[in-house]
Amino acid sequence: MFEEGAVLKKRYGEENVFDLSLGNPIIEPPAEFRRELKRLVEHPLQGMHRYMANAGYAETRTAVAEQIALETGIKFTMNDIVMTCGAAGALNAVLKTILNAEDEVIIFAPYFVEYINYVDNHGGVARVLPTDEQFIPRFDALEANIKARTKAVIINSPNNPTGVIYSEDVLHRLGEVLRKKEAQYGTEIFLVNDEPYRKLIYDGLKYPSPLRHHPRSIIVTSHSKDLALPGERIGYLAVHPDCSQKEELMDGLIFSNRILGFVNAPALMQHVVRHLQSVSVSITEYQQKRDFLYRQLTDMGYALVKPQGSFYMFPKSPLEDDVAFVRELQKLKVLTVPGQGFGTPGYFRIAYCVEDRVIEGSLDSFRKAAQKFGLTR
Amino acid sequence: MFEEGAVLKKRYGEENVFDLSLGNPIIEPPAEFRRELKRLVEHPLQGMHRYMANAGYAETRTAVAEQIALETGIKFTMNDIVMTCGAAGALNAVLKTILNAEDEVIIFAPYFVEYINYVDNHGGVARVLPTDEQFIPRFDALEANIKARTKAVIINSPNNPTGVIYSEDVLHRLGEVLRKKEAQYGTEIFLVNDEPYRKLIYDGLKYPSPLRHHPRSIIVTSHSKDLALPGERIGYLAVHPDCSQKEELMDGLIFSNRILGFVNAPALMQHVVRHLQSVSVSITEYQQKRDFLYRQLTDMGYALVKPQGSFYMFPKSPLEDDVAFVRELQKLKVLTVPGQGFGTPGYFRIAYCVEDRVIEGSLDSFRKAAQKFGLTR
Repeated sequence: MFEEGAVLKKRYGEENVFDLSLGNPIIEPPAEFRRELKRLVEHPLQGMHRYMANAGYAETRTAVAEQIALETGIKFTMNDIVMTCGAAGALNAVLKTILNAEDEVIIFAPYFVEYINYVDNHGGVARVLPTDEQFIPRFDALEANIKARTKAVIINSPNNPTGVIYSEDVLHRLGEVLRKKEAQYGTEIFLVNDEPYRKLIYDGLKYPSPLRHHPRSIIVTSHSKDLALPGERIGYLAVHPDCSQKEELMDGLIFSNRILGFVNAPALMQHVVRHLQSVSVSITEYQQKRDFLYRQLTDMGYALVKPQGSFYMFPKSPLEDDVAFVRELQKLKVLTVPGQGFGTPGYFRIAYCVEDRVIEGSLDSFRKAAQKFGLTR
Repeated sequence: MFEEGAVLKKRYGEENVFDLSLGNPIIEPPAEFRRELKRLVEHPLQGMHRYMANAGYAETRTAVAEQIALETGIKFTMNDIVMTCGAAGALNAVLKTILNAEDEVIIFAPYFVEYINYVDNHGGVARVLPTDEQFIPRFDALEANIKARTKAVIINSPNNPTGVIYSEDVLHRLGEVLRKKEAQYGTEIFLVNDEPYRKLIYDGLKYPSPLRHHPRSIIVTSHSKDLALPGERIGYLAVHPDCSQKEELMDGLIFSNRILGFVNAPALMQHVVRHLQSVSVSITEYQQKRDFLYRQLTDMGYALVKPQGSFYMFPKSPLEDDVAFVRELQKLKVLTVPGQGFGTPGYFRIAYCVEDRVIEGSLDSFRKAAQKFGLTR
């Protein structure tokens, strides 16, 4: 995707291609980040680029624990936290730790495509389940598909690619289903939430955390989106303090983080994010982009669920064949991603974490495509 | 190891424990690194913390390629390079790419213990082969143990834990054996060199690169040791330009780097090391430490191969039971690692990448242990 976009931009000029295909925020890190980085570089701590314990610096883990405790009201300590190379590193450490060969992991379509690869990395089997028209898991399908070998359910709220946030009610029902099936099979099932967009939520919503709905829940996340640092690979995993066999689990997670080759989360960034746990990029800016683009697209006749968070939208494709539609848009120099790439054909993803001129520049093409394929409103 | 040392230091005071157990250089990064980091932070490039292509920044890959070309005389380009999260990330990407289930990887004892874990991560089988008294591979054992399923031979020169460097002659013979067996089985065997200590070599030695002795050779390395940045997880892999099916191999390596959860090497450090490819920490300082400690230990009667590079020594244990001997040293407040941890009982490892006061402070204990266990000279 990244490379294809680069080729088009080379051919037609950067300013004539409207790239809405990548979750690579154009927004620069917040001023607090720059200040903190500058302070550290001007007054370096002794040994601040050395190895530390594989779980990360105690001070950083403590800062993360305090922030999660503040947000959820659950008593987290540094012993529940492992600093990781982004959410991707965190999720791989989790899956390496909890999966035996052929164990099953449930994910919901549309899904971030890497989940399938990550489960496969560690010998597991991904079982993809459907969501409803609002992109909320279908609980009947969930109940029917949890088996004795089901080790985890991965969710992603706020969601990529839909922007949907799971409500307290949805999370409550999820937790109930998991515990019912745990009782039935005598197993334990982890609820793993990939939540890099946790702070990117709109309309003054308070974030509903899955931690409050299942004791065997694990958070995997990063500062890629909330501090706009996707290239720096700085994130963490957090295990619910009441999780069963927690010490053994934490040992496994730290060991996995080490032997998978991550070794530890990048040192300098661990130092930097220590004091930035409550900081985030401007939500207002993203919300304005969402509001503008959502209004424009619905006015043109596109059908889409209004996103509550993250910086994606997932409209219905006017053509049944979403790949063909994305190709049509590409001819009009607008880059998006077909729903097929998220296991949900018939839709396409727009990433609006881009400059306003890119969003504005894309509108003509979206309008042309809407007219060509008979959208009316 | 890291945690155990911390406990002892807490109990007896930092200054009373002589920790020679960790490859965590006490030396701070060179001045050029600090300057470059400062320059970047004071004059940030637009988007310098964003995602880039998974293989890394073109400019950084080009700088790495030019440096290797300069050192080896082989025409490397950026297309032969993938920036990685340290050498550990590089080696995992390589093994993920080249191994099918049950494929064999040959390593030589003493070895860096993580090799076993890394091979296991990707469904391979590690076959450990012996070295001679000088810690050089035994070629008869190598020939006898390469089978149709052998996909790679991992070497580590300069070596952890021995400090030995494989000479041009040793590498030439290695290459010859590999090609003989490739011809016999109709297979291709990769020679993978883990070379984070490539620039830490003494006595004015010119580094003998395996690249010049086998076309299917891959370098995995990092700036953890030469720039003293082990916590930052910045490294790369380099594939011999003449390697067979190179494009397919590179695609696999970049894909593996992505799906294993590394995604890309940390962005800021990629920017920083771009201009530091010919820079290294002071070799003189390490060489002085080696000279001093080597002389002291041999004077006490310890038997050891003189290290030519890296910052480790691997003396014979005065007790047959190296774990017991390391425990004796620990009672005397000197921390080392038993040879057993490297697959070679009867030896112990000293890491001398520490302050002189730590080396000097350890001598009394080494002397006492030598006397207790009857070393004479």
